[in-house]
Amino acid sequence: MKEPVNAEQARHVEELYGPLTRSLRTLIDLVIRSEAEDSDVRHAHALIDQAAALLSSRLDPEPFGVRTTAEGGILTWGNVAIGMRNAIAPPLDVIRGEDGHVSADVTLDAPYEGPPGHVHGGVCALVLDHVLGATAHRPGRPAFTGTLNLRYVAPTRLGKIRIEAWIESETESKTVAVGCITNPEGVVTVRAEGVFIRPKARS
Amino acid sequence: MKEPVNAEQARHVEELYGPLTRSLRTLIDLVIRSEAEDSDVRHAHALIDQAAALLSSRLDPEPFGVRTTAEGGILTWGNVAIGMRNAIAPPLDVIRGEDGHVSADVTLDAPYEGPPGHVHGGVCALVLDHVLGATAHRPGRPAFTGTLNLRYVAPTRLGKIRIEAWIESETESKTVAVGCITNPEGVVTVRAEGVFIRPKARS
Repeated sequence: MKEPVNAEQARHVEELYGPLTRSLRTLIDLVIRSEAEDSDVRHAHALIDQAAALLSSRLDPEPFGVRTTAEGGILTWGNVAIGMRNAIAPPLDVIRGEDGHVSADVTLDAPYEGPPGHVHGGVCALVLDHVLGATAHRPGRPAFTGTLNLRYVAPTRLGKIRIEAWIESETESKTVAVGCITNPEGVVTVRAEGVFIRPKARS
Repeated sequence: MKEPVNAEQARHVEELYGPLTRSLRTLIDLVIRSEAEDSDVRHAHALIDQAAALLSSRLDPEPFGVRTTAEGGILTWGNVAIGMRNAIAPPLDVIRGEDGHVSADVTLDAPYEGPPGHVHGGVCALVLDHVLGATAHRPGRPAFTGTLNLRYVAPTRLGKIRIEAWIESETESKTVAVGCITNPEGVVTVRAEGVFIRPKARS
């Protein structure tokens, strides 16, 4: 675990990198769909390389990992599903309801495409793994996927989807969760069941 | 299906967007790990917005989908797992061997992180879905995931991994595939079994 960050510092980094990462998500989409003149594409490429040079002037040699705030908060800014600084992350905004219910509403557009016009089956798996896994996390005790079983019952169109999960059963070290993806018409497109393991807290 | 592209045009787009997308993958990583001065981060952000403005001067309103070349090739440049123009894609370079064996060697670094230092379980699912599914694809007849069952037997560290899949059984419309992720020491970290459905070819 890396050095704790104080809350003010964390807010400052969020203000700096949140909007930057959102711009980068837009750029990922544009690189897929652009039909600009060659000269504009080459110019854009040069600007991207300049941005990279600026950002690499000082660099953490390690992946982001998980950092804590001095106030006990958890920062997962590098996480591929929810990371504030990870442009691959849609990002998922995971909402914890009552009785261990977890949900996330998200829009998955062109950058998440598999079959034409549809979300890649593997991206469905990624968001379900994360949301089902979130039912099993406890403060300071992240859970790891043990098994994940997915049933694709209808195609998932690009656009808005909802991901939901519930705890089916639980012991001290293990959570069994079920969940699904639904489209805006409320039709379930993918069903999932997973077992998530919580390693023992360090004593 | 969109208009076919001729082979020369396809090569030209690859020469233009291949290196651009590789630079963008680097940039995704740097935005996660940068510790640059605030002024450099703000300058980088401005350059990214400039690049976005250039690329959006002319834009396909649709996701990339699948395009064909006049010579009968298939272009999946927007695909989230293998797309040449999709910076989210590592990208997987899927190798088809004999007897339906499929494999891909890939390096997954900081942008694919879940637990600290490890590949997100959902990203493991994404790459396995794609490689298992590739055993079932036939020219002009893509296969869709029916079910996918994953068993996480060891943590998958960030870095180099190999993904492999084999056909277990097959009918005209369905392929059952098995596969796994192995780390550089040859240890299996995730096992997968999937059923992939091929819709009937249009007559």
